Amino acid sequence: MTMAVSNPHYTESLRKLMDAFGRLPGVGSRSAERIAFHLLKSSREEALELSDAIRAVKDQVRHCSICFNLTEGDPCSICADGSRDHGIICVVEQPKDLLQLESTGVYKGVYHVLLGRIAPLENLTPSELTIPQLLERVKPAAEGGGSAAPVKEIIFATNPTMEGDGTALYLQQEIAKIAPGVTITRLARGLPAGAQIEYSNKAILADAISGRTKA
Amino acid sequence: MTMAVSNPHYTESLRKLMDAFGRLPGVGSRSAERIAFHLLKSSREEALELSDAIRAVKDQVRHCSICFNLTEGDPCSICADGSRDHGIICVVEQPKDLLQLESTGVYKGVYHVLLGRIAPLENLTPSELTIPQLLERVKPAAEGGGSAAPVKEIIFATNPTMEGDGTALYLQQEIAKIAPGVTITRLARGLPAGAQIEYSNKAILADAISGRTKA
Repeated sequence: MTMAVSNPHYTESLRKLMDAFGRLPGVGSRSAERIAFHLLKSSREEALELSDAIRAVKDQVRHCSICFNLTEGDPCSICADGSRDHGIICVVEQPKDLLQLESTGVYKGVYHVLLGRIAPLENLTPSELTIPQLLERVKPAAEGGGSAAPVKEIIFATNPTMEGDGTALYLQQEIAKIAPGVTITRLARGLPAGAQIEYSNKAILADAISGRTKA
Repeated sequence: MTMAVSNPHYTESLRKLMDAFGRLPGVGSRSAERIAFHLLKSSREEALELSDAIRAVKDQVRHCSICFNLTEGDPCSICADGSRDHGIICVVEQPKDLLQLESTGVYKGVYHVLLGRIAPLENLTPSELTIPQLLERVKPAAEGGGSAAPVKEIIFATNPTMEGDGTALYLQQEIAKIAPGVTITRLARGLPAGAQIEYSNKAILADAISGRTKA
């Protein structure tokens, strides 16, 4: 029942469309074929809506010049929000992490998106990330620092992985050099809500024990 | 770990892109998000290639005016091919069926794509399909029929399902009325190559027995 996508009797533009879809993550050649035929059958409006949406994202979405969150205007809506506390910066790896934290509605400070984590094996060094720009924001105004408000606290919200922790450790040392008065914190680590101790692994339990709080 | 795709901090154009991808067959909201972020990161060229491919398919792909196969030129490359036998028409339900038959390289006649099968429950009547156009092709030239060569044979290659068989039966009656001299055949039915009798179902075995040939 398999049919090569490169069958010579597909029309040229159908074949190009299937190839383009087949290169997307999680879309195999069978799905690409199914999607291409779906678009062929669907209304012109529906198909062009997708085509235009792709173009619009490439034309309009950019990184905020302050925090590097994804945005269409600059600065982003969070950096432009005067009701938030610009003295607290939460450092995340990716825009998706920021969105996930925002969805809790708990945090009222601002952010800094690193656009990755330090990973020497992948040639991701501090200068590949937005670390220089973060240090610039943290630097006291008297020394030419660039934050709208004096920075009181930096919250590390990198992933609790070896590379995320390594990135946080590096940042902690760099920030201590240029702004020793700034409080540095990180997200609490321990048992995830709803977990069962019986099934929790050693790393989680070790964090939970060493980070225990008064009941 | 779930995050609503309608999170208010996605930019407007990212949200539109995710919505448009989420409407495609087999693409859930999670995949749509993954694809949208992939396109955001990928090069402008790669993203616009997909955007343009969608537009090109809607602009350029149409149905052949003779056989209703998908094509960019008219007539399609098969109908325009003088080396094929235009006196034999193979009737299929969909362009994909045609492609699958072509991939065998065995058939040298031409095609007629019905663009569906008769399905009264879905309001698919003969006039919704390309049946009137097929009858026009089959009609003898003396009576104003429209085929390039006199039609000698019609091969039914509708699916071996209740609706496919029903469509073929209907066509057989209609063709007999207007062109009684035309030979009508259908694809052989029986054991699929590689099958095991032990695991074949009753319908397959019944076809295989009643259609048995001399060894």
